Amino acid sequence: MALIVQKYGGTSVGSPERIQNVAWRVKRCRDEGNRVIVVVSAMSGETDRLLGLASAVASNAVPREVDVLLSTGEQVTIALLAMALNDIDCPAVSYTGSQVHIRTDSAHNKARIQEIDGDRVLGDLEEGRVVVVAGFQGVDEFGNITTLGRGGSDTTAVALAAALKGDECQIYTDVDGVYTTDPRVEPKARRLDRITFEEMLEMASLGSKVLQIRSVEFAGKFNVPLRVLSSFEDGPGTLITYEDAQMEQALISGIAFNRNEAKLTVTGVPDQPGVAARILTAISDANIEVDMIVQNVAQDATTDFTFTVNRGDFKKALAILESTASALGARQVKGDDKIVKVSLVGVGMRSHAGIASDMFSALAAENINIQMIGTSEIKISVVVDEKYLELAVRTLHSKFGLADEVNAE
Amino acid sequence: MALIVQKYGGTSVGSPERIQNVAWRVKRCRDEGNRVIVVVSAMSGETDRLLGLASAVASNAVPREVDVLLSTGEQVTIALLAMALNDIDCPAVSYTGSQVHIRTDSAHNKARIQEIDGDRVLGDLEEGRVVVVAGFQGVDEFGNITTLGRGGSDTTAVALAAALKGDECQIYTDVDGVYTTDPRVEPKARRLDRITFEEMLEMASLGSKVLQIRSVEFAGKFNVPLRVLSSFEDGPGTLITYEDAQMEQALISGIAFNRNEAKLTVTGVPDQPGVAARILTAISDANIEVDMIVQNVAQDATTDFTFTVNRGDFKKALAILESTASALGARQVKGDDKIVKVSLVGVGMRSHAGIASDMFSALAAENINIQMIGTSEIKISVVVDEKYLELAVRTLHSKFGLADEVNAE
Repeated sequence: MALIVQKYGGTSVGSPERIQNVAWRVKRCRDEGNRVIVVVSAMSGETDRLLGLASAVASNAVPREVDVLLSTGEQVTIALLAMALNDIDCPAVSYTGSQVHIRTDSAHNKARIQEIDGDRVLGDLEEGRVVVVAGFQGVDEFGNITTLGRGGSDTTAVALAAALKGDECQIYTDVDGVYTTDPRVEPKARRLDRITFEEMLEMASLGSKVLQIRSVEFAGKFNVPLRVLSSFEDGPGTLITYEDAQMEQALISGIAFNRNEAKLTVTGVPDQPGVAARILTAISDANIEVDMIVQNVAQDATTDFTFTVNRGDFKKALAILESTASALGARQVKGDDKIVKVSLVGVGMRSHAGIASDMFSALAAENINIQMIGTSEIKISVVVDEKYLELAVRTLHSKFGLADEVNAE
Repeated sequence: MALIVQKYGGTSVGSPERIQNVAWRVKRCRDEGNRVIVVVSAMSGETDRLLGLASAVASNAVPREVDVLLSTGEQVTIALLAMALNDIDCPAVSYTGSQVHIRTDSAHNKARIQEIDGDRVLGDLEEGRVVVVAGFQGVDEFGNITTLGRGGSDTTAVALAAALKGDECQIYTDVDGVYTTDPRVEPKARRLDRITFEEMLEMASLGSKVLQIRSVEFAGKFNVPLRVLSSFEDGPGTLITYEDAQMEQALISGIAFNRNEAKLTVTGVPDQPGVAARILTAISDANIEVDMIVQNVAQDATTDFTFTVNRGDFKKALAILESTASALGARQVKGDDKIVKVSLVGVGMRSHAGIASDMFSALAAENINIQMIGTSEIKISVVVDEKYLELAVRTLHSKFGLADEVNAE
């Protein structure tokens, strides 16, 4: 008898009617002979309503009490779903994070799960009950309520699946799977049947917001097969697992992009050890995260140094860089916040040369100038002018045959 | 340093602004040098909103899950109040019923408190923090969330005061104390400075809805001084304690009344042992509660038997009584749901004869016919036609000098 963990997000449980729909879906899974654990988020809008109350009573809400407040959101949902399940003759029982001992550290509002005592849940499953668990929340060693931060319900689901050796962790959401790229940019984008954890991490961190990154890392670490499915229509969704040697592996799995970056360049930097560190330390001391970093080969004992930051940090980063550059005696500082990053992702590129040159020549054929290049083992990213975003994505989608069922080698 | 338990009901915490007002009131109590525990209810309207969601997802909500659902109402309030307190530099920490181990039995929706482990609360008080506790809720021996039933927050407050040997339990509400009678019926009604537990029980059970009866019983049992105060204006409120021998005791404390009764009479009942039991057993088997019972002296080997029930049970009780009466060979069954009960309450009547005759003659002087009479040690009740309610209350209020500061012997 398989053990399935299902997770439903806020939109999927956003109204009494939707909660009843989820109940029928859960019941069907149980009727098929599975043991079922369901993890739910707060009904959509509820977290914002609660935060609104908090800001109405306090100018600075203490983090501990924010967690006490927000955790009621999921508690309402677990009670309603357990009622709805019992009402259609599917025995079910609800638990808060505290009741099933989802033990976290004490970092309120962004706690991390440390351990789960699954005995109580296993006892209920043994007796044929569906177990409904509040996502997003836990309890620290002193009995204080904690929350995992927004999107933490995915992490709860994966952690439960890992702790109880679940056969599959199903994440129900408002899309029916992971796509080769954003269908709003490329209408030919295709749902992937499978994708590896590593690819999913690259896709997620580059802007595909289907899954919370932390939950994918967690699932990978504990080897819990993850499946992304729609809670509104039936379908196989996308399975996220480790690479399967037997499986015919697509060369490229998808194209991710990020509109939220800005580029900063300092030219004529003296080519001395420690210069890059000085530039980046000043930036990170201001709590600005740096994404891509490129440094050119030195000419005339000076070099150019370019990096990208979140667009929201652009002006702040520019001011810091100007001050660092003048201290270093650099020639000039330039910035551009009208850029995007486009990335090819695929574990297949590990064993295949020539992907990068195919990518660059395809973009060149469309007269798209590449401003920066960055690579990892399973990803190639380029920075281009933001006006080329759609053209670049569609060009690469077509070039690597992503619209076809299995793309060519 | 006195230990004060304050309880604020749903109206008193019904909006963010009101929660902030409560925070200032709590802070003032702490600044006066007291250790303060605050018990709060759900914001007014919240419990009904949650019950609405429950009935939208399930035709029959399981009681266990109703408790999981409803307990979120107080949890929201404790978090908001603790935030508001910290925001005005009054250190505070919130706890759910489960977190401070308010251990109850497992009777969901109407659980009874069995014990409270106050160590955690005492630790916080020791370190100067205000402790905010969710009313109305507890946890059973298996870790399930329970609720005490509507109005149970009063009971939580009294139980905490009893367990932690509090000096006073203050119940803040939307009235400024307990009155000699309902001011809407007798504008001359006067707030009482003090009243005994026994009198309060008689007043409460007769229709004064200021306090939940169970919490008064609890306070009496553990000798916790209770004080009823307004959360909207300052004032001493009404202190509820045991009778104080040193204190000049008023003869009569108040006049209670109940509009929600109906009277049933069966005449010509054979005057045999067991007849009263047969009549009342049939009624109580139908889960109908009986209040007053009067049986006249037998004449001609038959007797008359009269009792009162809640008005909502009148028709059902009448049908049952007719069937019992015919089985008993009684003469006739009569009913009247246009009656009210008016009661004089006062521990002073224990040691004073003549109260009853004063009462009856005062009513007779106004031509108010008395249909039934019942007495207890500190109460005399009469049933009269409902049209005389206001006249009877005002007549007795004046007769026993209740509008004066200390009424005459």
